[in-house]
Amino acid sequence: MPEPTKFLLTEADVPSHWVNLLPDLPGEPLPPLNPRTGEPAGPGDLTPIFPMGLIEQEVSMEPEVEIPEEVQRAYGLWRPTPLYRARRLEAALNTPAKIFYKYEGTSPAGSHKPNTAIPQAYENARAGIQRLATETGAGQWGSSLAFACSLFGLGCEVFMVGSSYDQKPYRRSMMQTWGATVHRSPSDRTESGRSQSSHDTGSLGIAISEAVEVAAQDPDCNYALGSVLNHVLLHQTVIGQEAILQMEMAGEEPDVIVGCVGGGSNFAGLMFPFLRAKSGARIVAAEPAACPTLTRGVYHYDYGDTVGLTPMMPMYTLGHDFVPPPVHAGGLRYHGDAPMLCGLVKAGVVEARAYKQNDTFAAAVQFARTEGIIPAPEPAHAIRAAIEEAEAAREAGEERVILFGLCGHGNFDLAAYDAYLSGELQDPEFSEADMEAALARLPEAPAIA
Amino acid sequence: MPEPTKFLLTEADVPSHWVNLLPDLPGEPLPPLNPRTGEPAGPGDLTPIFPMGLIEQEVSMEPEVEIPEEVQRAYGLWRPTPLYRARRLEAALNTPAKIFYKYEGTSPAGSHKPNTAIPQAYENARAGIQRLATETGAGQWGSSLAFACSLFGLGCEVFMVGSSYDQKPYRRSMMQTWGATVHRSPSDRTESGRSQSSHDTGSLGIAISEAVEVAAQDPDCNYALGSVLNHVLLHQTVIGQEAILQMEMAGEEPDVIVGCVGGGSNFAGLMFPFLRAKSGARIVAAEPAACPTLTRGVYHYDYGDTVGLTPMMPMYTLGHDFVPPPVHAGGLRYHGDAPMLCGLVKAGVVEARAYKQNDTFAAAVQFARTEGIIPAPEPAHAIRAAIEEAEAAREAGEERVILFGLCGHGNFDLAAYDAYLSGELQDPEFSEADMEAALARLPEAPAIA
Repeated sequence: MPEPTKFLLTEADVPSHWVNLLPDLPGEPLPPLNPRTGEPAGPGDLTPIFPMGLIEQEVSMEPEVEIPEEVQRAYGLWRPTPLYRARRLEAALNTPAKIFYKYEGTSPAGSHKPNTAIPQAYENARAGIQRLATETGAGQWGSSLAFACSLFGLGCEVFMVGSSYDQKPYRRSMMQTWGATVHRSPSDRTESGRSQSSHDTGSLGIAISEAVEVAAQDPDCNYALGSVLNHVLLHQTVIGQEAILQMEMAGEEPDVIVGCVGGGSNFAGLMFPFLRAKSGARIVAAEPAACPTLTRGVYHYDYGDTVGLTPMMPMYTLGHDFVPPPVHAGGLRYHGDAPMLCGLVKAGVVEARAYKQNDTFAAAVQFARTEGIIPAPEPAHAIRAAIEEAEAAREAGEERVILFGLCGHGNFDLAAYDAYLSGELQDPEFSEADMEAALARLPEAPAIA
Repeated sequence: MPEPTKFLLTEADVPSHWVNLLPDLPGEPLPPLNPRTGEPAGPGDLTPIFPMGLIEQEVSMEPEVEIPEEVQRAYGLWRPTPLYRARRLEAALNTPAKIFYKYEGTSPAGSHKPNTAIPQAYENARAGIQRLATETGAGQWGSSLAFACSLFGLGCEVFMVGSSYDQKPYRRSMMQTWGATVHRSPSDRTESGRSQSSHDTGSLGIAISEAVEVAAQDPDCNYALGSVLNHVLLHQTVIGQEAILQMEMAGEEPDVIVGCVGGGSNFAGLMFPFLRAKSGARIVAAEPAACPTLTRGVYHYDYGDTVGLTPMMPMYTLGHDFVPPPVHAGGLRYHGDAPMLCGLVKAGVVEARAYKQNDTFAAAVQFARTEGIIPAPEPAHAIRAAIEEAEAAREAGEERVILFGLCGHGNFDLAAYDAYLSGELQDPEFSEADMEAALARLPEAPAIA
């Protein structure tokens, strides 16, 4: 029998609770602010578009939140997910480091996003809501919500950024296969869309506006968001809880844990349970040099969307109207990051690093050729950081234990691999001019430490 | 804790042997015949393109064949695969039947094909071969072999049918990501290709000729085939061995086992271990009405390829030059079937059924909306048959236990779902005229019972 490369749990190990890290954070949580008044936003600001079950989770100070049985049952369709030891990658790197990865690509939608889509659909269905509206860029979130809605008998209306709608017809078909209605954004369906019809390629900001407008106007319809918010991060903590059990099966404790960061939910999902368990591991966040929110952004209140309709949140931001260059890690192209994660970076608990696009694809291809799985461009950033750690361990001659999050497969991103392999991939970087422009347009809001 | 929907084995349960059903079959095996002389083809006919390790497996009469440790280790990258109980589908069908499915889509290439690509690459590497050549249509086999070659340090040269090369660029990128060289067939690389350059869209027959030509001319290069042959079926028996253990975990014995059939390897991989174990289950083969080899073909010696370069094999055939209509289940568009499987159909051990394209996609969409996984069009035929069995159980009021093989996901087949959902999918059927044309062109060969 060869040595194990895979650490599998049974369905009985699907966590029964989510880990809420909010009470563990130092000081009082900084409240979101109403975008018009600048006053702290309360639950009442959210009821037009979110069900009370999710609003309660958003503000809960309980250390654990029970996972409803219906949600556990739906998680059981693909959870627990596997944790692997990357023995072939270790050998290729000739490193004494032990590299582990937690793989979320086995979900029907191919990423970690269903971990939150499922409980969001469940809470809305329980509240009597008939339909959810959302936006999607690359399509990971839209397809996950379409899948979740199909399980709970909800309608699903997705506003897909026009350029993605044209370039990624398969992601659209995937949503339709699960029964969702997909609009090319900007659309004629909403006032927001009609007013922006000159922007033919669309943007995530416009798509958000369209989805929020639909949800706010129809009492049977709510809105759903795939990252950034506290309750989304909460739902993702099934990842880290399973990983802790699986690292125990492997008989190892991580010295360093790495994840990629877009809005922060996949990252938080892996890290928060380790932080709760007082792991001594270094925690590393990997982001694109083209959208270096954590490494280059300013810590300030800013809007969550481009137009400025959402509450202002305390976060590292590149400016709410910063439009990142079109790198292929579409899920990491967000101007801000989850407030909870930003607080941890500010406190020095999380270390952030930025990587260029070609370097991350080089890491992704090395991974695919050794471990088999072709990763999505987003977790390729985590792979890059993990390889860097393994190389440093080789230099230091130490048996470092590295764990990273592989949050999705790249089956829908092969055009990007094509560009990389043919040498046509760009390496855009965030400039000083970008930074100055962002600072000039930050909203007026109280300064934060 | 909800009732289990998923039955998972550990890496220690990856089988240590393959199940060779050849000695269990009644009578002496019918030999393949040399295409030129009509005499029984021996191992010597195969050595120019296959390594001796695989030729020995092809003709072995041992009931079990040991799986080399290196192959077990590579299998461990994704095996054992999960077995699910389709509780949500059962509920949607309102059936007392229990429906189980063995899912092979968790492999890096997304199907069962790596089960044989891995040992084929291993045996060739062990024999000192530097490179493998093969053909691919839809891309499932080519990408699996590219993946396997990347693990064993072999080069990989894939001749991809021209029309697929143009329509499925992502499958091509996938092969290149794993390091393979992909040629659009017909190509300038071979005499076969140059002689067929007028057939711009290409065909599987031409692509096979190109790959065989390359392998036959270069002593460092061999050829690899993804189905039909005995050793390929042998390698796939890891599927059924795991499924037996998993059905035991579920505490159930199947009353009926269903699989889809193209060349027959996924089907045999699931069924053979159950047949070895003397399961009393009915065994059902599901195929497309557009290419109904088992339900409409004649049992006769025929060539394995269009041009007639391969040995003649005893099988149900629609005629070696029959070109099936372009249905989306590309993996089931083969004029013949594995000789071992055909013998079992002839003996009445396996029952065959044919389904129309739109009926199979209706089943696939119902499955996706209940169980989450979007299936490839090929196993959608097995889903259709399984639903038929579950509906019959409901009519009969009996608690039938149904097991089917879900041999791959549909992430690369979403254009087909698009066509189905927009009502544009055709339902071609095999005609009497097709049959007459096929019979007229069968090669001269001894009649078989």
